[in-house]
Parts: sequence; structure tokens; C-alpha cells
Amino acid sequence: MDLTHFKDGRPHMVDVTEKEKTFRTATAEAYVELTEEALLALEGGGVGKGDPLQVAQLAGILGAKRTADLIPLCHPLPLTGIEVRVELEKEARRVRIEATVRTKAETGVEMEALTACAVAALTVYDMLKAASKGLVISKVQLLEKTGGKSGPWRRDRGEG
Amino acid sequence: MDLTHFKDGRPHMVDVTEKEKTFRTATAEAYVELTEEALLALEGGGVGKGDPLQVAQLAGILGAKRTADLIPLCHPLPLTGIEVRVELEKEARRVRIEATVRTKAETGVEMEALTACAVAALTVYDMLKAASKGLVISKVQLLEKTGGKSGPWRRDRGEG
Amino acid sequence: MDLTHFKDGRPHMVDVTEKEKTFRTATAEAYVELTEEALLALEGGGVGKGDPLQVAQLAGILGAKRTADLIPLCHPLPLTGIEVRVELEKEARRVRIEATVRTKAETGVEMEALTACAVAALTVYDMLKAASKGLVISKVQLLEKTGGKSGPWRRDRGEG
Amino acid sequence: MDLTHFKDGRPHMVDVTEKEKTFRTATAEAYVELTEEALLALEGGGVGKGDPLQVAQLAGILGAKRTADLIPLCHPLPLTGIEVRVELEKEARRVRIEATVRTKAETGVEMEALTACAVAALTVYDMLKAASKGLVISKVQLLEKTGGKSGPWRRDRGEG
Amino acid sequence: MDLTHFKDGRPHMVDVTEKEKTFRTATAEAYVELTEEALLALEGGGVGKGDPLQVAQLAGILGAKRTADLIPLCHPLPLTGIEVRVELEKEARRVRIEATVRTKAETGVEMEALTACAVAALTVYDMLKAASKGLVISKVQLLEKTGGKSGPWRRDRGEG
Amino acid sequence: MDLTHFKDGRPHMVDVTEKEKTFRTATAEAYVELTEEALLALEGGGVGKGDPLQVAQLAGILGAKRTADLIPLCHPLPLTGIEVRVELEKEARRVRIEATVRTKAETGVEMEALTACAVAALTVYDMLKAASKGLVISKVQLLEKTGGKSGPWRRDRGEG
Repeated sequence: MDLTHFKDGRPHMVDVTEKEKTFRTATAEAYVELTEEALLALEGGGVGKGDPLQVAQLAGILGAKRTADLIPLCHPLPLTGIEVRVELEKEARRVRIEATVRTKAETGVEMEALTACAVAALTVYDMLKAASKGLVISKVQLLEKTGGKSGPWRRDRGEG
Repeated sequence: MDLTHFKDGRPHMVDVTEKEKTFRTATAEAYVELTEEALLALEGGGVGKGDPLQVAQLAGILGAKRTADLIPLCHPLPLTGIEVRVELEKEARRVRIEATVRTKAETGVEMEALTACAVAALTVYDMLKAASKGLVISKVQLLEKTGGKSGPWRRDRGEG
Repeated sequence: MDLTHFKDGRPHMVDVTEKEKTFRTATAEAYVELTEEALLALEGGGVGKGDPLQVAQLAGILGAKRTADLIPLCHPLPLTGIEVRVELEKEARRVRIEATVRTKAETGVEMEALTACAVAALTVYDMLKAASKGLVISKVQLLEKTGGKSGPWRRDRGEG
Repeated sequence: MDLTHFKDGRPHMVDVTEKEKTFRTATAEAYVELTEEALLALEGGGVGKGDPLQVAQLAGILGAKRTADLIPLCHPLPLTGIEVRVELEKEARRVRIEATVRTKAETGVEMEALTACAVAALTVYDMLKAASKGLVISKVQLLEKTGGKSGPWRRDRGEG
Repeated sequence: MDLTHFKDGRPHMVDVTEKEKTFRTATAEAYVELTEEALLALEGGGVGKGDPLQVAQLAGILGAKRTADLIPLCHPLPLTGIEVRVELEKEARRVRIEATVRTKAETGVEMEALTACAVAALTVYDMLKAASKGLVISKVQLLEKTGGKSGPWRRDRGEG
Repeated sequence: MDLTHFKDGRPHMVDVTEKEKTFRTATAEAYVELTEEALLALEGGGVGKGDPLQVAQLAGILGAKRTADLIPLCHPLPLTGIEVRVELEKEARRVRIEATVRTKAETGVEMEALTACAVAALTVYDMLKAASKGLVISKVQLLEKTGGKSGPWRRDRGEG
């Protein structure tokens, strides 16, 4: 199997010039595993007008738009929709992030959805680190994509 | 416990104007769990001149420098040293990333080290996603920090 | 009336994936009200080769291209034309800025025109603040837009 | 009166290398004048979990950090504190924004405070423009600064 | 001959809204002339796992994506392919950089190819400057372009 | 001779945390060799209010501030002064660019001065390319630096 991002042993931005533009979506998720201290701080912080999770949510939206700046071989894409959810799963003592990105383009938006999740998760960490430095960001992963020549893909249907 | 990033219920960038500048370091890590296909592609790709893991490593260094742009309440800091390692742990079928960031500043560089790891991990995903979309980024976490009023912290010494 | 930028109470970047691309323009304006000192400095400064208003004009053009980076819920758009005028209205003792932005896209460029005006106005302030800190930026407002499903809009025709 | 941003008729970034670092603050404000439709939309939007004004507030904080990227002759400064308030003044049918920025540096943060206000105001416009395009951003102005050789300045004490 | 980037004496971003999107490519080159010390350092550095020229190559790819941010009157374009080669020409004691950029757009990608070359060349300088500050970047020039109304152009066919 | 930007074969951002901050300057230059057509266009363009060379000059100042974003292993530095000159040397049928950058920091600003020159030169090319695509950017080189442990360096004094 060849890595498409390499050509004659050199990284490059894959040429998609002649591919057709098709509708594409990608959905990813990430988790921030909280400590007890962080959970308490988060619940306390949520009482006021400022909701730390909304800060993370916005950071995720902005992060998706910076993907091609951050990931060297990503194509700059005209994103046409970004949704990010950031929710406290209190029982599981964790924050769950889910991001869906849409475009009509020659290539997919998997990296944009994953970057949105990662940036939102880092922002959750930033806001809670005064309470506890031991938080862990985990399971940053693609859940589903649609569009493109390779067609739909879903994590829960297994995968090669 | 109050969230320092909130004041009267509003997020803000914490005032550190009158804190003293001290030497600070932070070290973080992240993992990318590979599938069999991704491992094969990575080993094949590494044969040529272009090493996918070096792409990720550089992306991590650049990512650290973008932290204050990405994380809304982070202070812009004059980073004075960034090291990122990206290594294949073949037995464990995963890539391990470790980043250490240094500064002399009023506040710490934990977020910079974590952002370096997250961006490097996303870049690994990007380069291997043609082989397998099922890779998972996990355990993005702080390992150690030094400097600042709260002093040193190490994950392996347990933590409140 | 619902705010389109909110969905289930959460901000999001509105999904425009399936909208058609149409020609769109937007024109906005802004004013910088000068003090007597600032006016004198501006007229003096204009004598040399360097024209402070041209600095502001270029800053406006560059600012329009940064809109999606600055305004969290704005779509990144392929701008196809940007014009910015920055003119001293000596009688009125103010600087007037007018920006027109064009694209062929699924959504409009009102924010790009307004951002161009705001950044140009801030730049005028920056260049004159050594003469006088009391300058005021005012009437940053949309004058006209064309294209899109809602059709043309002009400020001077009143508005719903 | 010479414009300090010009030297031999050419714009330049003023040399502050040998100035001493001192504590500095700047506070600025801006207003978004609402229409009736926009006010209704804003009050409706505020009912849910997502508060449009918090989106603007965060955009303002991030905007302050981008000042040296946007304003050509501004120095990049190590900002040490940013506070932005965005409040609905219902009686006056307007949104008021106030931003305070702090640093310890060779030059002041007036532009950072003004940029925070302008970006927050543009974001308010963006979120309400579906309700009404006729909103006007006005009175983007410096209220107060402290620090630096020229000492404190306050708008309400009059000024040339 | 008029400069298209100027209109009524003011710089502007040329209006290409109604031009058709066509396939376009541009190829540019640049050289970094080495000193003896720099050549030795480069050859020594190339022995390990880290190849300085790959750092430059990636910087070039990322640089191409920043073109519209850097060059005031450039249009933001949806780049669809970027290739950068960075090779030591040992006999000539220099590094040669070649970049090809592709898009399907209303205007060409000459500036993107040239910017990729310039940023890669600056990066080569940065990595070798500890060995020798006397390196010279030279012949940053367009080699070829295709697409657009003006059709193909090649340096070696002569040109006015 | 080792490359300081590599450590154990991996590129890194050199640790300068414990170096002292000293005053530093760097001056660099670059040339854009014009064709006859470009010279005519430039002289014609200069007649109006808009001076193409001032556009390039500002782009150079802004470019210096983006150096650490563009050059992977560069430290982000608090630049305290930037001057850029862009002048037509009519006899020699070329444009000469000279940039001087200043800081008080742990490491030098050679890359910032060179980046300013390169970005200004690319901007000159951009503005003249409608007249002639055959322009060549040449001799992007450091002229002088002061400060730092290695002390002053001047090109004209020869160098190993």
C-alpha cells in the first residue's frame, strides 16, 4: 500500500485538480476524561453566565477553519457547514465532543472534523487545568464520512 | 473551586501582568493507535527518502507556535525551545509523540506542549488515512511541568 | 425570529452546502472622526511620499481576507474582488472608508466588506494616535448588497 | 506635528528597542445600535443555552491577539491580560462592548483594546444580520490608557 | 501599459468574479548558493535521520497555502495540488528548489509557486546560518504557467 | 560542523531559554530585476496616487511579523522595530529592497529581515506580472547583523 501523501519519497499535497466536486461530510468525536476536581470545577463554572463548554465549542468551530494551516498536506477547502457539540457526560465523568463538517469539494473533510474535536478538547483542558492537570484527551476518532469516490464509511460497521 | 479562566461568569484571559517571569517547561505525549494496514503503509512509506513521521514532527513544532491563536484564553508566549519526537512503537502498533516546550514567562507552556502533540497526531492520521480511516488518537496528556508558583508536577507521582 | 447562527441553542456555522453559488457583492462604509491635531498631522504626513491613507487602504484589503479567521461563524469564501477607498473629508474633519467585496459563492460577503472597513479604520487610528488619542470610529455599516436568495438590499431604501 | 509611523515619508514600525518595559493597560469601547427586529432576535436567541453575546465576547479576546497581524505598523506584544464585556443595553436598544488589555512592554496596547472591541462588534453584527442588516457599529473609541512615557489618558477628562 | 492591480491610482484586488474557472498550473524555482562551510554542514546533517532539505520542502508547501495572507493583492485560491522539490546540487554548490502549484480557478497560481520557493529557500538559509551567514538566495523565478486567458508561458521560450 | 537546528537527527527549535536578552539588529536586501515592459509599467503606475512600491514596502513589514509562522524552526520574537525601503534603481533596471529589523531577545532577527525582503520582492513581482512574467528575484541576502554572542557580522568584510 502506498501513502498517497508521498510521491517519489517526498511528501506533497495530492493533486485533486481534476476530481469532481461532490458533497461531503465527516463526523468525528473526542473525549476529555475528567478528574473529580475538574468535574466539580466544571459544574461550578457552569452556574454563571459563562459556560466553559461553549468556549470549547467555538474554539472547535474556529479550529476546523484552520485545518489547512496546521496540517501540512491538507488542501484548503471551502467549508460550507460546521457543527460542534461539547457535552458533559456526568456519569462517565468526561466531556464528549462531536463535530460535523460539510463541504462541496474535490476531497474530504475528515481532517477538519478531527481538528475541530482536537482543538475543542484542548480548550476544555485549558479551562480546567487550574483544577487538575491530570485530564486526558482520548479517542479522537472519525465516526463517519460521506461523499467522494470511496463512498461512505462508518466506524461502527467495522473497517479494514 | 473556581475556574480561573472565568470572572463574574465571563471567560477572560487571566491577568498575569504582575507575575514574575520564570523558567518553565512542559512535556506532553500523545498516541496514534494504528491498524494493521496503517502499520504496513507506514513501514513502506518509511523506506523512501520521505519519512511521514518527520512531517508530523515538524507539524507539531509549528503547531506549538500557533497555540495562542487556537486556544481562546491562552496567553501569547515567547517560546524559547520546542522539541517534538514522533516514533513508531512497532510492537504496540502505535505511534508515540512526545513534545517538550520551554519559555521564560509569567505563565506556563502546558497548552503549547499538548497542542504540539495533538497537531502532530492529527498529521500522522492525515498521512495514513488513505490506508485506514480507523486510526485513533489517544492519551493526549501532560507528563510533567516545571516552573511557576505551583512548582513541578509529574503525572507519575499521582495528582489531586 | 430565530438566529440562524444558533441551532438547538448552540452557535454553529450555518450549513450552506446545497445552496447554489451566485454572484454577490457587498459595500460597507466607516468613518474616523478626527480631532484638529489629527487633521493637521494627517495633512502634514500626506506631503511626503508615504500616504497614511494608503496604509489603511491596504490593511483593509488584507483584513477582508482574514474575515473567516476573525468572525467565528463566518464561512471561508473565495473572494474574487476587493476594493477599498480611504479618503479625507476635510470639511467634515473625518476620514471616510468604503469597501466593496465580490464573490461567487453560496453565501454573502457583508462581513468581509464590514471587516475591511473596520480594519482600515483601526489602521487610520493607529497612525494618528500619536497626534491625538481621541479619534472615534463611527458608522461602520452596510450600504448595499446584491445576490443571494434574499436579493438586493440598500440602506437608503429603508429596511425591515 | 509629525506622524511617528512615518520616517522620511515611508511608513515603518517605530523603533522601541531601547524603551523600557512598563506596565500598561488600555480600555476601549464600541456600540452596536440594534433595530427592533435585531433586539427581538437577540432576546429570543438568549433564551437557549447559546448566548450570542458570549460568541462576540470570545471573538473579541481572540481578535486582540491578532492585532499585530491586522494593523500593519503595530508591534507584536506579549499580552498579559484581556477582558471583554458584551452587554445588551435594552433601553438604549444597543449592545455595548468594553475591552481592557494589559501588558508589560515597550509600547502601549491601545490598538489591542480597540481591535478587541471592533471584532466583537463585527461578530454581534454577523449573528444578527439575518434579522436585520441595518445595524450600525459606532463609537469605537479609547476610554483610558495607563503606563508609558506619556502617562495616563482618559477620554472624559477632555483632550485636544 | 496599465498595472491591473491599480485602479484610479489605488491598489485593489482585481475583480475576477465573472471569469471562468479553468485548470491552471505554475512552476517556479529558486536557488540557495552555499558556502563551503554550509555545504559541509548540510552533508553532515543529512547523514542522520533528519534531513534539512525535507524541512525546507514542507515549509514550501505550507508557504504556498499562506500566499494570499502575505501578498496583499493576491486572491485566496482553492489550491488543488502542491509539489515542492528541494535538492542539493553538489557540483554547483547550491540547493535548487522547484515548486508546482495547481488549481481550478479564475486566476493563476504564479504567486503561490513563487512563494513556495521563497519560503523553502528562506528555510534552507535558516537551517544553515549557524554554519555560514553568507548564503545567497537567487533566481526566484517563474518557469512555466498553463491555463487562463493568456494561455501557456515558458521562460525558456524567451519573453518580453 | 553540526547543524544547530538538528538534535539526534531530528529538527527542533533550538533551546535559547537561558540565553540573555540582548539588543539585536539585522539588515538584509533583495533585488527584483525588471524587464523593459515592467519598468515602463512601474513608472506609469507611479504617476497616480497609488505607488506600487509602497504596497511592497508594507507587505515586507507585515511579512517580517509572520516569520515564525513561515519558517518552521524560527523562534517567535517580540520585534521592536521594522524598516523596509523599496526603491527603483532605474539605471540598473531593478528594484532594490532593504529591510532592518530590531529586537531585544535571546536570538537574532536575521530571518525576519530576510523574510521582509522576500515578501516585499514577491509583492513587487505580483504587481508587475501583468506587464511581464519574466522578472527575477535575486540576491536575497543578509548584509549585517549586530548583537548576540557571535557579535557583529558584515557581508562586505568577507566571511568563511
